[in-house]
Amino acid sequence: MDLKDYLEEKKRLIERRLTTLLPKEEEYPPVIHEAMRYTLFLPGKRLRPILSLAVAEMLGGELERVIPVACAIEMIHTCSLILDDLPSMDDARIRRGKPTAHLIFGEDIAILAAIALLNQAYYIIFRMKELAKVRGKLIIELGKRLSQAISTKGIIGGQVVDLKVNEEELDLTTLEYIHSHKTGSLFIFAAEAGAVLSGANAAELSACSAYAKNLGLAFQITDDILDVVGEEGKVGKDLRKDKGKLTFVSYCGLSEARKIVHELIEAAVTALSFFGKKAEVLLDLARYIESRQR
Amino acid sequence: MDLKDYLEEKKRLIERRLTTLLPKEEEYPPVIHEAMRYTLFLPGKRLRPILSLAVAEMLGGELERVIPVACAIEMIHTCSLILDDLPSMDDARIRRGKPTAHLIFGEDIAILAAIALLNQAYYIIFRMKELAKVRGKLIIELGKRLSQAISTKGIIGGQVVDLKVNEEELDLTTLEYIHSHKTGSLFIFAAEAGAVLSGANAAELSACSAYAKNLGLAFQITDDILDVVGEEGKVGKDLRKDKGKLTFVSYCGLSEARKIVHELIEAAVTALSFFGKKAEVLLDLARYIESRQR
Repeated sequence: MDLKDYLEEKKRLIERRLTTLLPKEEEYPPVIHEAMRYTLFLPGKRLRPILSLAVAEMLGGELERVIPVACAIEMIHTCSLILDDLPSMDDARIRRGKPTAHLIFGEDIAILAAIALLNQAYYIIFRMKELAKVRGKLIIELGKRLSQAISTKGIIGGQVVDLKVNEEELDLTTLEYIHSHKTGSLFIFAAEAGAVLSGANAAELSACSAYAKNLGLAFQITDDILDVVGEEGKVGKDLRKDKGKLTFVSYCGLSEARKIVHELIEAAVTALSFFGKKAEVLLDLARYIESRQR
Repeated sequence: MDLKDYLEEKKRLIERRLTTLLPKEEEYPPVIHEAMRYTLFLPGKRLRPILSLAVAEMLGGELERVIPVACAIEMIHTCSLILDDLPSMDDARIRRGKPTAHLIFGEDIAILAAIALLNQAYYIIFRMKELAKVRGKLIIELGKRLSQAISTKGIIGGQVVDLKVNEEELDLTTLEYIHSHKTGSLFIFAAEAGAVLSGANAAELSACSAYAKNLGLAFQITDDILDVVGEEGKVGKDLRKDKGKLTFVSYCGLSEARKIVHELIEAAVTALSFFGKKAEVLLDLARYIESRQR
């Protein structure tokens, strides 16, 4: 199967299951359930949950064991998008080609929907025995990894530094900190969840983490590149928003940023050499991210 | 020991442990750790965590098993305070006698601190084996109950209805929905956590829930009453903020609201009859809430 079909198939699988793992839209009070679904079901790539599934497939794991946590990861990602877009943060108008959540529902409901998605993700983790026959010990291991990935040492820490860093203080180390925390942490957790649930040993787990770490950082830098060279209709969010904001592109220039992406993708690919031919999908995914247009 | 001393002793115990269960203030990036601690360590009653401890003591449980989850509950409560105070929600200036978090740190960091506290609470739940020798099955049971208490069927649902209800739609059922969800859900979880960790049987658990449900609702109505009759210096937050907002007091009048509080306290007391003399502290606590001045 070519990668495009693979991504499409897995995306549909994730989206079908996402809806069953949320409260129904009409449940009381309906506005919060509408708001939770609004940003979640805008057209997205579903890259993080697909990463969980692809890792599991590579390791011979069962997809059914992984789908709930993969959906939880997409909910957490959506939570972070809603919050990043708020007026007090990036003040964004467009997300995935549509008005941002706070423009539709108001800031108050947007914030509560973000929290509700995060909370729902944890609810899914705690229910993984019923949902996916995962035993308690693994649930707790995943829960610890997830809460660390979200924490002030993970996504939240990255967002804080992104909001608060001064232009004068910004250097490549800080830029890398921001991206590897804001984006990398959840990529790494996505890969680890797929691995842990497929019975990966320590060496396999660490190879998957290394792959995801490099992939996540590369993905974020390609986001910065697309912000400069992309077409708004394709990318589906406010572009040139980064103007004045320091990114890999504004800091290093476009061609150096592309070089860094290439190196990161090479590092991701190298991490997979461990798995030989079984890693084909993940290798294709890495190449796809290097050359993505949206 | 009289109740005042009991509450003071337990409050100190909780506050001592809260600080060890958070990232250190100086850890990178420090501003978020300062913000997490800011609202958490403003002078609070610590009523919810104390409820967990008092239930555990009544049932002959070990406090050490309960303290981490009790601290997690206080973090979740603080998360909800920070969010409620935001400009897009209650737009409050004063909380626990000091400027609200967003006035000190900005809205962006206040929101992230709230999320970080919620997330830290879950991290604590997942670590209860290391922290308090709680076995996996109980951790998962508590995690499910907690995530339901926070969800759109719990605290978040209550806050949504509180924000969005129209004056014309408001009736006693809706008011009760708001309070029993915004406040009651976490009171109930606090009591249940103390009970579950002390090996309560189904009848004991359900008596503790009934007590907490009535206590939580009574507590919230006394809040409405204090908003009208309290002194700002004592209560420690913006008063008369409810002006124009429908509350039990504005809806039923002061004397009817007091009557409802009394009935709820009686119901809480009755739920405890099950435990006989062992329930003394919880009975005193109920009486204290009925007559509280702050």
